[in-house]
Amino acid sequence: MTETLKEYLKHYDATEYPSVLVTVDTVLLTYHEDAIKVLLVKRASHPDIDHWGLPGGFLDQSKDKSLEDAANRNIEAKTNIRPPYLEQIQTVGSGNRDPRGWSMSVIFSALVPIAACKANVDSVEEARWFDMDEARKLKLAFDHKQAIEAAFERHKQKALYSFIPVYALTQPMTLTELRRVHELLIGKTIQRKSFIRRAEASDMFTDTGKTTQDKGRPAALYKVKSAVKDYRFVRNIEA
Amino acid sequence: MTETLKEYLKHYDATEYPSVLVTVDTVLLTYHEDAIKVLLVKRASHPDIDHWGLPGGFLDQSKDKSLEDAANRNIEAKTNIRPPYLEQIQTVGSGNRDPRGWSMSVIFSALVPIAACKANVDSVEEARWFDMDEARKLKLAFDHKQAIEAAFERHKQKALYSFIPVYALTQPMTLTELRRVHELLIGKTIQRKSFIRRAEASDMFTDTGKTTQDKGRPAALYKVKSAVKDYRFVRNIEA
Repeated sequence: MTETLKEYLKHYDATEYPSVLVTVDTVLLTYHEDAIKVLLVKRASHPDIDHWGLPGGFLDQSKDKSLEDAANRNIEAKTNIRPPYLEQIQTVGSGNRDPRGWSMSVIFSALVPIAACKANVDSVEEARWFDMDEARKLKLAFDHKQAIEAAFERHKQKALYSFIPVYALTQPMTLTELRRVHELLIGKTIQRKSFIRRAEASDMFTDTGKTTQDKGRPAALYKVKSAVKDYRFVRNIEA
Repeated sequence: MTETLKEYLKHYDATEYPSVLVTVDTVLLTYHEDAIKVLLVKRASHPDIDHWGLPGGFLDQSKDKSLEDAANRNIEAKTNIRPPYLEQIQTVGSGNRDPRGWSMSVIFSALVPIAACKANVDSVEEARWFDMDEARKLKLAFDHKQAIEAAFERHKQKALYSFIPVYALTQPMTLTELRRVHELLIGKTIQRKSFIRRAEASDMFTDTGKTTQDKGRPAALYKVKSAVKDYRFVRNIEA
């Protein structure tokens, strides 16, 4: 006679199988002072103690209903905000990336406006925003360097066909700032007029009626309308 | 005094932490008889016994050095081939997708030529190629339906900007067959001439000098040159 699911579950014991270390780590990016910055955290414990690495940690089955929950929980612990844009990048796993055992990490990436989380990041002693250029020179924990590059590459691709990078900006923002974020991600300059045409065609931004008050010619300040995540350019920016 | 890594590892015990079920599942796609087909396997054990689902299984720490290894091992068990194209799609995880406990699955997708694995698939009683249309109507195990849709969407996007779909074809193949795979993935017809221009511009295919022998006008047979995975169209096919 065939066993029922109930009978099967009664004698199923997950602890009989060798456990895998499961962590969730997030590449948090923002735009500040004409640079793309990445949030790094100095590790306070083994392995790779005292190395900078990505904010993240072990999946907590009692707290996390999903992998996104685990990512958000770890981000909130360092920044005190829930990021407006969070995306899964890839999962890495191998028998030799962590000396504690077979380990896997689900890598997420989030874009956040620096203003929303600045106070909190500044108060966490071991967290700091690094320019991408600086971060690339550090010896990071585990394989976090590759994770950052994979996330950056994903955002670069998105910058070619969408305005997703706007989530790295503090709103309201100017279209010049937005173009600058795209330029930094893509790695080349973008024609101003064509960028403005794309912004207008997208109908994603509302003119707040206000302008910048600092030095130079006043520039119009925009805000993102809601529900813009799926907008795709009719034609990609040429990389 | 600070503890060394060696001391830390001595008393680190992974089994103290609740274990997560880690599986690797693959959406295997091929092209056959003017349709995109997906390989499904009838589950022989609980949970979701007797339902069709993706070929895959638990990560085996003693056999798998990486997640890709785990995917390839499970694919080879059903098809007896190593797929020419394998890509990670996404990782799903939650406390309620599997009655045995908190479970995650790393979803891969592979493109394979049907000829290479036909005999083996035919001999495995519980494995079968389904037309995408048929598969969409089945009640599949776990959340495998969403996994198939996510993989199909990824291949659709790739079909817009690359010739990656060629890996679903048995070589040598005609450019008409290749165009047909692109059309089926994208969901609309593609202009013949413009497609041939893209194929020529890519320099990805070698004319074998042979032609088709079946009914109708003979068509040139092509093979893929090596190292073509990274080629991107200058301009996307318009979806």
